[in-house]
Amino acid sequence: MSGANAVKEDRLWQRHADMAKLGGTPKGGVNRQALSPEDAAARNQLARWAKMRGFAVFTDAIGNLFVRKDGTDAAAAPVMSGSHMDSQPTGGRFDGMYGVLAAFEALEALEDAGVTTRRPVMAVAWTNEEGSRFQPGAMGSAVFAGAYRLDEMLEQKDWKGVVLRDALADTLKAAPAPLREGAPGFAVDSYIEAHIEQGPRLENERKTIGVVTAIQGSRRYIVTIDGEEAHAGTTPRAARKDAYAAATRLAAALYEATADAHDMLRFTIGRVEVSPGSPNTVPGKVTFTIDMRHPDDAVLVEREAMIERLLVEKTKPCSASLQKVTNVPPTNFDPAVIDLVRAKASGLGLSNMDMPSGAGHDAMHIARLCPAGMIFVPCERGISHNEIENATPSDLAAGTRVLVEVLEALANR
Amino acid sequence: MSGANAVKEDRLWQRHADMAKLGGTPKGGVNRQALSPEDAAARNQLARWAKMRGFAVFTDAIGNLFVRKDGTDAAAAPVMSGSHMDSQPTGGRFDGMYGVLAAFEALEALEDAGVTTRRPVMAVAWTNEEGSRFQPGAMGSAVFAGAYRLDEMLEQKDWKGVVLRDALADTLKAAPAPLREGAPGFAVDSYIEAHIEQGPRLENERKTIGVVTAIQGSRRYIVTIDGEEAHAGTTPRAARKDAYAAATRLAAALYEATADAHDMLRFTIGRVEVSPGSPNTVPGKVTFTIDMRHPDDAVLVEREAMIERLLVEKTKPCSASLQKVTNVPPTNFDPAVIDLVRAKASGLGLSNMDMPSGAGHDAMHIARLCPAGMIFVPCERGISHNEIENATPSDLAAGTRVLVEVLEALANR
Repeated sequence: MSGANAVKEDRLWQRHADMAKLGGTPKGGVNRQALSPEDAAARNQLARWAKMRGFAVFTDAIGNLFVRKDGTDAAAAPVMSGSHMDSQPTGGRFDGMYGVLAAFEALEALEDAGVTTRRPVMAVAWTNEEGSRFQPGAMGSAVFAGAYRLDEMLEQKDWKGVVLRDALADTLKAAPAPLREGAPGFAVDSYIEAHIEQGPRLENERKTIGVVTAIQGSRRYIVTIDGEEAHAGTTPRAARKDAYAAATRLAAALYEATADAHDMLRFTIGRVEVSPGSPNTVPGKVTFTIDMRHPDDAVLVEREAMIERLLVEKTKPCSASLQKVTNVPPTNFDPAVIDLVRAKASGLGLSNMDMPSGAGHDAMHIARLCPAGMIFVPCERGISHNEIENATPSDLAAGTRVLVEVLEALANR
Repeated sequence: MSGANAVKEDRLWQRHADMAKLGGTPKGGVNRQALSPEDAAARNQLARWAKMRGFAVFTDAIGNLFVRKDGTDAAAAPVMSGSHMDSQPTGGRFDGMYGVLAAFEALEALEDAGVTTRRPVMAVAWTNEEGSRFQPGAMGSAVFAGAYRLDEMLEQKDWKGVVLRDALADTLKAAPAPLREGAPGFAVDSYIEAHIEQGPRLENERKTIGVVTAIQGSRRYIVTIDGEEAHAGTTPRAARKDAYAAATRLAAALYEATADAHDMLRFTIGRVEVSPGSPNTVPGKVTFTIDMRHPDDAVLVEREAMIERLLVEKTKPCSASLQKVTNVPPTNFDPAVIDLVRAKASGLGLSNMDMPSGAGHDAMHIARLCPAGMIFVPCERGISHNEIENATPSDLAAGTRVLVEVLEALANR
């Protein structure tokens, strides 16, 4: 029996149901924020399942939780798969958790099928991917990859003032696991992460597997427009410096200029503040955010220049400024890993399509360490970061079967 | 000596300075909200000045304060002039107060010049024009004119829960004046109100006197646009129901469709709320206010139909609705009073122009009772409802000279 054939759809679905009880909400979602008691409960659950199968379990100084199925070559670097178990405050059952449980199911399936590999195969649950309690997100994978400093992360505080160092200590006390000494990070041969798509493309295109080629780059900006408050009843338009009229001209031009034939560029104005916000006063000041993403950094560079041009053209007689808040370059996954995912999906007879990831994932940090890739499965209507987030047992299992075959191939190379 | 020649610019200016001390703010404005201790202080001040000149003083059940210079015909209905002494929380020295002090200066000037009139000439300070503490505004004049019910107004509460009936009782206790028995309101022959323009037209056109022909009608709306929240990174534009993109299309079309050749229509989007207001979430809901004003009600009717049409056309694939919050029809002042103001201004050699009022004033209610009109004088840069509100002593005196001549003519007809 192949490892892929040993994937048990019911077992995988049941594990999702069991995990969904930890921080479960009345609306069927989860509230399992990073380093909370619910997070500790999920860690304990995963560790219990691992021990029942005889897999080794350990953690590191940022709380990443590892499960290892040994290979035949004790000196070989492992292949790794996983994601995160923390959630948004009103999160779903599948975001992150699917990647952890698919990796664990892969270990079990390989074991059940009696498959041995040269390299160890590891499952990982990265600490604090969501970044909703402690900023920044994707913290555990970033520290593991050396992108963020451990000592700085340990000093982060949540909105109640709780220091991450203390929350982590409490979590590891409630969910003890052997601690790997030293700074986080060790040699990894390759990394593959399964995840729900969090967008509607697979569902719309009737595909089961997304072969993730890249994580798109993202840039975030704050636009500020300064005009002049005036009486709405008495001030003629010619005498106004109406900051919201200027903001509307600019936003309309931006929406138009960011439409593209392939609908690849993501452009969002998500937060808008109009001051003083009185119905009978002409607005004197407007600020709004721009979130812009594309797999090709050159496109972002070009569009940023366009924003700067329109900012001047469209906001007269007001004045406007642009502040760049974040600039995360795109992640391009390893071509060999991408090819392997596509080949294994097709080999299993699963419909698939290449696609970039719209959202950020832990894989973007690990891709700086070693060859990496991702596998997407559909989620209902593309809805995520929402308690109604949903996916089907068969799609989750299909993605896991691809994962098993990819891990097996990587672990024997 | 004519009454107009007896107007004393210095005395009028000093009275403004004295009143500005009552509720004066560090920035040079005033905070003298309706029925506050500061309002009571202003009432006492006006009553003291009146008694020094031997004028009769009385109040009514809604707290309107009247000063009367008798005429020769005890049975004749008075001609009346005035405005209000309450201010916005961060208001200026001239809004309202000028109309009260100009009327009082008119009484003094007529007295100083030894002018007798057939009809009594009265100055009035209407209660609670601003409506910033107790809603609605222009309350005293509306009750006087029978537009609002006294018993309902007495039950109004401010944001701290203070009932107007109690605040009024406290005010009249601190600023006692003989109470006219019965419901507010009595026969008035004609009414003329002096006010700063609160807009920039007189200053821009280099005119000293605004001959106010009308108070424009105003309509206020709330637009609600319902879309669907979505992940900013993963959701293609074609799959979005972006409530803010729809709001921008609608607002851009509205700004364009409300531009008019004569710059008469006032169209303002003053308050905008975008939900959930997260930079990386496509907005699911937007609400914004529309404040629209024009002297001709037919124009407002026609533009409202246009708003309803654009609402449907521009917001797809979202849904949108329009709620009409207020609808105040225009006030057209009495042609004979308008002609009289224009003739007296020209006769005094003062540059003048006909104009509608952009803001509402007590005169809009009294115009339902009797022939009425208004006189505007310039204010600096058109700025009002602001602590930096300013006007010149000579403009204030010029408006008062016109007022004296108009009152004299009306009082002898």
